[in-house]
Amino acid sequence: MIPQEIIQSLSVSTPSKIVLLVLDGLGDISTGEGTPLEVADSPNLDRLAAEGILGRTDPISPGITPGSGPAHISLFGYDPIRYQIGRGVLEATGINMSLTPSDVCTRGNFASMDEKNLITDRRAGRIPTEENRRLIDLLSKEIKEIDGVEVILETVKEHRFVAVFRGEGIDGRLAETDPQALGVKSLDPAPLDPAAEFTSSVVRKFIDRANRVLAGERPANTFLLRGFSKLPDIPSLEDLYRLKPAAIAAYPMYRGLAALVGMEILKTGDSIADEFATLEENWSLFDFFFVHIKKTDSYGEDGNFPKKVEIIEETDRLIPRLLALKPDVIAVTGDHSTPAVLKGHSWHPNPLLIRAATVRRDACSSFSEAECQRGGLGRLPALEVMPLLLAHALKLEKFGA
Amino acid sequence: MIPQEIIQSLSVSTPSKIVLLVLDGLGDISTGEGTPLEVADSPNLDRLAAEGILGRTDPISPGITPGSGPAHISLFGYDPIRYQIGRGVLEATGINMSLTPSDVCTRGNFASMDEKNLITDRRAGRIPTEENRRLIDLLSKEIKEIDGVEVILETVKEHRFVAVFRGEGIDGRLAETDPQALGVKSLDPAPLDPAAEFTSSVVRKFIDRANRVLAGERPANTFLLRGFSKLPDIPSLEDLYRLKPAAIAAYPMYRGLAALVGMEILKTGDSIADEFATLEENWSLFDFFFVHIKKTDSYGEDGNFPKKVEIIEETDRLIPRLLALKPDVIAVTGDHSTPAVLKGHSWHPNPLLIRAATVRRDACSSFSEAECQRGGLGRLPALEVMPLLLAHALKLEKFGA
Repeated sequence: MIPQEIIQSLSVSTPSKIVLLVLDGLGDISTGEGTPLEVADSPNLDRLAAEGILGRTDPISPGITPGSGPAHISLFGYDPIRYQIGRGVLEATGINMSLTPSDVCTRGNFASMDEKNLITDRRAGRIPTEENRRLIDLLSKEIKEIDGVEVILETVKEHRFVAVFRGEGIDGRLAETDPQALGVKSLDPAPLDPAAEFTSSVVRKFIDRANRVLAGERPANTFLLRGFSKLPDIPSLEDLYRLKPAAIAAYPMYRGLAALVGMEILKTGDSIADEFATLEENWSLFDFFFVHIKKTDSYGEDGNFPKKVEIIEETDRLIPRLLALKPDVIAVTGDHSTPAVLKGHSWHPNPLLIRAATVRRDACSSFSEAECQRGGLGRLPALEVMPLLLAHALKLEKFGA
Repeated sequence: MIPQEIIQSLSVSTPSKIVLLVLDGLGDISTGEGTPLEVADSPNLDRLAAEGILGRTDPISPGITPGSGPAHISLFGYDPIRYQIGRGVLEATGINMSLTPSDVCTRGNFASMDEKNLITDRRAGRIPTEENRRLIDLLSKEIKEIDGVEVILETVKEHRFVAVFRGEGIDGRLAETDPQALGVKSLDPAPLDPAAEFTSSVVRKFIDRANRVLAGERPANTFLLRGFSKLPDIPSLEDLYRLKPAAIAAYPMYRGLAALVGMEILKTGDSIADEFATLEENWSLFDFFFVHIKKTDSYGEDGNFPKKVEIIEETDRLIPRLLALKPDVIAVTGDHSTPAVLKGHSWHPNPLLIRAATVRRDACSSFSEAECQRGGLGRLPALEVMPLLLAHALKLEKFGA
């Protein structure tokens, strides 16, 4: 892979426009009748495939199943090994908390423990978000600061919240407290580096004080902390590729990921049609649009094959509105596969479709895993998609004389 | 990619012979009727394809459009990121100037400026080569040395020349003086590193003195300098692969590139038939031949699709003469694509054909982008072609016991 710094030096700003349409968890495996993409009635995507070029991408490398963070980071053109985004940061940016570069964030899960402090439910029965809010208000009132370190708590959803530690000399290299098992105590947030001793003692005190505040609550009388992390030192898409990028995503985490790489986050609604309307309204203002569709992944995670098919078909019906905008480059892909039969993310390559006047067309005539396998782009790391999109939009100058 | 040093340790000298036939800018994209390679009547190349194995190469990596330098360096088996060749060096070696490792070379373009020193033409109306020679003679007579640094000037063609600075303590890390725009002054050759302060002052004095010499000339009353560079520290093909390599190229820049990696440059004529005659005459003397055909690229750059087709057909008719020599390995490929519709280099993969008794044949029966896409070699970096050619010629020993 060519160093990012070289691609940066070749990037030029042009009026051409790129749309990266991500159907989260799109790829699947067939259990007989075909994959959701193969079964779906999607004439518009098929037309794009016929006019463009297909291929397959490995989100990270063969066999590696990515979380949403690294999968998107790759797609945006950043080496997912070099730029690892902690779970805490991911949650915090997903709910639009503004972080300073020195903040340590962690994701909290409200949990239940018995009188011997043994964990009985790692998610406190997935308490309603409103109950979470009440508990976070309570904790926030009681615990504002520990040894000079400010503590900021925010509800995310159901049992999930974010804790941010802000102050001098804090360090995110701490062990997670979630034992990932029931009938045992939560773990100590031990320092993983001597520089994190102070932060470790602050977090221990935070847990002790919070447990006292929650002592009378049921079922959420404690919590588990995961993914202590700081903002990564990551260049923006504008710095790297001279893009003016915008993100359209109904789900917070994807807005957070887009914000991390400097995309402007556009307000949008809950439906796919709302997202396409947002694209239309903002078309003249940006030259790169990341449009994120969540529910292909959600239904994959639920093992709901027919609903995953429906989301593909719903998206397909909106493609003519995208085409009417006359983008120079359209890419349709997933961030990772979420096979319905596996009910979770997987390592299978993503289907990829690129449609532009500058592609070398292949013989493919529909958009599916099988067609992508014989597509002209072959198989490539997802990290190489962004340079390809820039190239097809004629936004990259020649390397060397 | 396996480290070059390991391939070096496995290389053995054998009597087998390899021909690397490069049709510059060969790859293209179809705008309906097919690509030039698909449209061309080329039964001999098709026969080679049927007897061999096809594939596609990325000159650098997906999406990256290379200049001729990095594209050829890759094909010759050198990492184009590790070995970057400056424009000045490329021009100087292209006209057979012999350089010492400490020389700083730069490409000069004669230009026109008005009475306020604002650039009015960055190429001085592309003055005839003879006029260039007259001006270079004049400058060479007036400026031989500056602060102990020898200045060597050579005409290239039309408005282009090479300036070489030779002496103690010089350094090529200087800014280019070409503003890449009209109506502005030329730029200062500022040092990009403190070590280049002295060289910067020498080049400034050179420009001042030269501008005084040229003051009365029209239209070439000044010049712009680009691509200050030194010879890269690059091992020869003989050192690396125990080859005895020769280059047959009608165009100077490609002779220069071949000379950089230690190929013997064979005298040849302007036509493709001349190049094949040179191959025949020198067949017994070398075991690796790089044969370069320029005009597929030139016509691609001109957007001249039919002429690009003709060059492929002209080459095809000469293939029987190549076969009569009974090479052990024949590779036919491009260095990069030059789609006629884009009128310039592009990032699209190169078609690649390898014909040898040792290939695992695929099902392809003609040489075209579409066939190469389904070829048995798949898609690989151009950098990996050279080890493949050595392997097919049985010039690489086993790695490990």
